[in-house]
Amino acid sequence: MTRHKLKIIPLGGLGEIGKNMLAIEYGEDILVIDCGMMFPEDEMLGVDLLIPDISYLLEHKDKVRGIVITHGHEDHIGALPYILPQIDVPVYATKLTQGLISVKLKEHRSLIKAKLKLITAGVKFQVGNFKVEAFPVCHSIPDAVGLIIYTPLGAVVDSGDFKIDYTPVDCRPTDLSKLAKLGNEGVLLLMADSTYAELPGYTPSEQIVRKTIERIIGEAPGRVILATFSSLISRIQMVIDAAVKHNRHVFIVGRSMRDTVKMAMEIDYLHAPAGIICNVEDLKKYQHNQIVLITTGSQGEPTSALVRIANHDHSEIRIIRGDTVVISATPIPGNESLINRTIDNLFRQGANVIYGERSNVHVHGHGSQEELKMLINLVKPKFFAPIHGEYRHLVMHAGLAKSVGIPESNIFIMDNGNILEIDGEKGRIAGKIPYGNVYVDGLVLGRYAHVILRDRKLLSRDGIVVVILAIDKKEGRLVGKPDIVSRGFVDVEHDGSVIDRGKELVAVAFGKGHHEHSAIHTQVKEMLSRFFYEQTKRRPMIITTAIEV
Amino acid sequence: MTRHKLKIIPLGGLGEIGKNMLAIEYGEDILVIDCGMMFPEDEMLGVDLLIPDISYLLEHKDKVRGIVITHGHEDHIGALPYILPQIDVPVYATKLTQGLISVKLKEHRSLIKAKLKLITAGVKFQVGNFKVEAFPVCHSIPDAVGLIIYTPLGAVVDSGDFKIDYTPVDCRPTDLSKLAKLGNEGVLLLMADSTYAELPGYTPSEQIVRKTIERIIGEAPGRVILATFSSLISRIQMVIDAAVKHNRHVFIVGRSMRDTVKMAMEIDYLHAPAGIICNVEDLKKYQHNQIVLITTGSQGEPTSALVRIANHDHSEIRIIRGDTVVISATPIPGNESLINRTIDNLFRQGANVIYGERSNVHVHGHGSQEELKMLINLVKPKFFAPIHGEYRHLVMHAGLAKSVGIPESNIFIMDNGNILEIDGEKGRIAGKIPYGNVYVDGLVLGRYAHVILRDRKLLSRDGIVVVILAIDKKEGRLVGKPDIVSRGFVDVEHDGSVIDRGKELVAVAFGKGHHEHSAIHTQVKEMLSRFFYEQTKRRPMIITTAIEV
Repeated sequence: MTRHKLKIIPLGGLGEIGKNMLAIEYGEDILVIDCGMMFPEDEMLGVDLLIPDISYLLEHKDKVRGIVITHGHEDHIGALPYILPQIDVPVYATKLTQGLISVKLKEHRSLIKAKLKLITAGVKFQVGNFKVEAFPVCHSIPDAVGLIIYTPLGAVVDSGDFKIDYTPVDCRPTDLSKLAKLGNEGVLLLMADSTYAELPGYTPSEQIVRKTIERIIGEAPGRVILATFSSLISRIQMVIDAAVKHNRHVFIVGRSMRDTVKMAMEIDYLHAPAGIICNVEDLKKYQHNQIVLITTGSQGEPTSALVRIANHDHSEIRIIRGDTVVISATPIPGNESLINRTIDNLFRQGANVIYGERSNVHVHGHGSQEELKMLINLVKPKFFAPIHGEYRHLVMHAGLAKSVGIPESNIFIMDNGNILEIDGEKGRIAGKIPYGNVYVDGLVLGRYAHVILRDRKLLSRDGIVVVILAIDKKEGRLVGKPDIVSRGFVDVEHDGSVIDRGKELVAVAFGKGHHEHSAIHTQVKEMLSRFFYEQTKRRPMIITTAIEV
Repeated sequence: MTRHKLKIIPLGGLGEIGKNMLAIEYGEDILVIDCGMMFPEDEMLGVDLLIPDISYLLEHKDKVRGIVITHGHEDHIGALPYILPQIDVPVYATKLTQGLISVKLKEHRSLIKAKLKLITAGVKFQVGNFKVEAFPVCHSIPDAVGLIIYTPLGAVVDSGDFKIDYTPVDCRPTDLSKLAKLGNEGVLLLMADSTYAELPGYTPSEQIVRKTIERIIGEAPGRVILATFSSLISRIQMVIDAAVKHNRHVFIVGRSMRDTVKMAMEIDYLHAPAGIICNVEDLKKYQHNQIVLITTGSQGEPTSALVRIANHDHSEIRIIRGDTVVISATPIPGNESLINRTIDNLFRQGANVIYGERSNVHVHGHGSQEELKMLINLVKPKFFAPIHGEYRHLVMHAGLAKSVGIPESNIFIMDNGNILEIDGEKGRIAGKIPYGNVYVDGLVLGRYAHVILRDRKLLSRDGIVVVILAIDKKEGRLVGKPDIVSRGFVDVEHDGSVIDRGKELVAVAFGKGHHEHSAIHTQVKEMLSRFFYEQTKRRPMIITTAIEV
C-alpha cells in the first residue's frame, strides 16, 4: 500500500470567525468538515453573506466523499444551500443538526436532492476510506460533536465548537474520558476551536444563566420579552421551564424562531407542557405578568422582530410600560452599534432592558484559556493546529499549546487555503491553494466581485454623475448642453445649480472648434471633477457617454 | 427686574456620545457650552463627520454671548471650525484647550478670526449676564474643567467629562472640596457626564497604566510601538518618562501626533529631556531596544500610521520580528472591527501585540457608577439632568441619581433639542426646538442631506444602471438599442451579457408602435428591473433618460 501524505486544508474559518470549512485529504479521498457562512464586513456593500471558496474541491470533485457537520449553527451549515448544488455528496450530521439543515435547505427549496445521513456520537461511520467517530461536545446548541478521523497515519481530532460545562442545561457535557482514552492511544493532530482563546480562566456554566432568567421571569412586574438566537435551544428550554414555574405563557415571535422551535419539538429536543406555548394572536387573553415572549433580534438585525418592536414598527407587538426586555446574547463583533441602538430605543419606549456581560443573562459557548489547555492536555497530540478564529486568536491559542508542552515546531498557525502536510513524522505548511472571498449577493458573485464592490464603495462615498453628450459626428463638437443625471451627490431638486453650471461649463468648452472624440470624454470628466470638487469638496464618480448626432 | 425662566437646551451629546453642545438661556443671554463633532455611523455613507444643529442659535444670534469649552477633545471642540464662521462669538478655554483649538482652527485656516479667551480654573469670568467659574476635573487630557454658571435662579453645574482619580498622572484631581462647598451653598441644577454610567464600581487610576507601560518598555526585547490618542497627553508623558528611565529614545509618528506634541511642549504641558525625542529619519542610528515609537491609529483609522504599518504600507516604518506593539486605548463603539483587523495584521507581520482591557495599558477618562453617585452626593443639586451619553446611559445615570435621593420628578432625561425650563421652584421639559442631523461631507450638507444619503445607500447595495433612450420624436418609438451604463451591478467587462440582453429586450419592446413619452420611462424601468432581478437576484437603481432624435 502506498503511503501518502495527509493534507489538511482549511477552506474557511481561519483568520476569521465564521464560514468554517476544512478539507482532510489522504490519497484518493477528501473528507470535508462543516460548511458555514458568515456575514460580510461593513465595507462589503450590498453583500448578503460570504461562503467558503471551494475551487479546490471542485477541481478534485471525484475525490470528495462527504461533508461531516459538527453542529447546526449558521457558521457551520449556512453555506450548504450554495455548495451542495455544486458538489453533490452525502452530508453527515446528528439528529438536531440534521433538523436544522433541513429547515435551511427547505428555505432554499433544495431539500429533496440532499443526501442527509444521520450519525450518532460514539458510533463509527465510514466516509470514503476514512473511519470517523463523533464525540459529544458541549456548545451553545444541543447535539454538537467533535470528530475523530482515523487516517492511516494516525487519528486526527477536530474539537468542533466546544466548551467544558459540567452542568450543561440540555446538551451533553464534552466527553472528557473519551478524549483522555484517545490521548493515551496517541493522536496525530488536534485541531481546536480558538474563538475565545483571548479569555483567561473558564467559561461559566449555562446554569448561571438559568438562575438569572428564572429570577427575572419570577420578579418581573409585567411582560418579559427575551431575545436570543433561534438555535440556542437550551436557552429557549430554560425560558419555557421558568415560565411554567411562574405561571406564564410563552409566545414565540419571528419566523425563524417559530420554525426552529417547531422542528425541535417535533424531534423531541425541546419540551413544553401542553398549553404553555400560545399564539401571538392570543396575547390579549392574558395578564401582563402571565406573559413571556421569545424573539429573535438579539444582534440588532434590522428586520428582526425585536428591532421592529424597538422602533415601534411591529405589526402585533408594542412595548408597554413595565415590560422587561432581556437581551440573552453577546454581540457578534461588528454588531455592537446595532444592538446598542436597539437597547436605546427599547428604553425610549419605556421598557426596562437587561443586557450586557454583567447581567448574567448570557454565557458564550466556547472554551476559555483554561479549557483550551485542558483539551490539549487530555488529547496530547503530536501536532496542533488552532482553528476557528481571527488571526490573533490563533496566535493566542498557539501560545497556550506551547505553554502546555507542544513543541513550537509542531504547532501550525494557518490561513485559509494553506496546505498542512503531515507524513506521520513531520508536519509542514507545504503551500497554498488559490483562495479568495466568495460573496453571495442575490446569487453568488463571480470572480470579479472585487470590481463590483470597489464601484459600490466609490458610489457610496460621493455618489455618481452621468454625463450624456450629443456630439456632432462631422464637426467633432458638442451639440447643445449635455444632459446630466446624478444620484447621491447633491440634492438636485432643491439645490441643482451646481449641476446646471456644470452643464454650462461643458457646453461652452466643447461647443466650438473640433475635438477628438476619444479626448472629449477624458476632458469633460476632468473638467467636471475639478469644478464639482471646488464647489462641493466632493468627488462623485463621473461617467460620460456620447451619442453621435 | 423681570424674573425669567432658565432654559437648558442640549444641542448635541444627548442620546449619542459625541458632538457635545449645550445652550443655557436666561432672558437676553445665551451661553453655549462646548462645540464638538462626532464620527458618522456606518450607514451615513460618505459622511466625514457630524456637527451640532445650531439653527436655534442662529435664530437667536443676538443673544449668544460666547462658547465655553470644557476640554480639548474632538467631541468638545471639533465643530468649532464649522460653527464659528456662522456665529462669531468669543471662545473661552483653559490654556491647553486653547492650544488644541488653535491647532484645529489653523488646520482649517480660520484661526485669525476666532476670539479666543483664556480662562483659569477658580477665577470667575463674565459671559453676557452669566458669571462663570471653571473648576478642575480629572479626565484623559490635562486642563479639563467643569463649569459653574451662576444664574439669577441659582448655580448650574456642568461636570464636563470627568473621573475621580486621586493620583492622576498630569492633570489635577477633580476638585471635590470645591464641589462640596458649592453643594452646601445650594446648587439649582447638576448636569453630569453619563458616558460610563453602565460600569459598576470606580474607574481605575491612570497610575495603573503608568506601571504597566513602564514594565513593558523596560522588558521589551526590541522596539516598542505605542498607539494612543494624540490628545492623551498624560499617556504620552508617561511613555517619555519610561523611555528616559530605560534609556530609550522616543519617535513621534503621524502628523496630528507631532503637531500636538509640539504644541504641548511649547506651552509646557509636556516635558522631555533634550535629545530624547528624535526624528523618524534617525531610527537607524539606534539599537531596537533603544527605541520607542508613539503613533496614532489606536482606533484602526484606515489612514493612520499604525494601520499603514500593520498593512505593510508605511513609507518609513516596517514591523520587525521582536517588535512590541501596545494599543493604549479602548475601542470607541463601532470601531471594534477596524481595531481587531489592525491587531491581526500586526500579529501577521510578526509583532507581539498588547491590547485589550485585561492588559492594563489603558484606563478610560470617565467616572463609573460610584464616582457618579459621589458627585451627586457632594453637589446635592435640586434638579439633575444626565448629559453626554447614549439613551441607555442617561437612563442608568438617572437611576443612580434616584438611588442617592434625587426625587424622580426632579430628574430630566432629555434628547437633543429638548427645552428644560426651570423657574427656581419647578422644572419641566417644556418642548422641543426643531433639531436634526447636520452632516459634513466635504462642505456641510444642507437640509436635504437625507435624500443624498438615501440614494448613496441604494447605490451601495446593488449599484446603478443608467439607460439612455433615443426616441423618435414624431413616431414615439425607440430608435435602435438603448445605451446602458452600469456601475456596481454586474461586472460588465467580464460578464456583461445580462446588460446586452437587457438592451435587446427594451429594443424589441419599444422599437415598434407608438409609445407615450412619459410612459416609456416607467415601463422600461419596470421591464429591466424585473429582468435583472430574475437574472441576478439584485435590484440595482435604474435611471432612464431620453434624447429625442
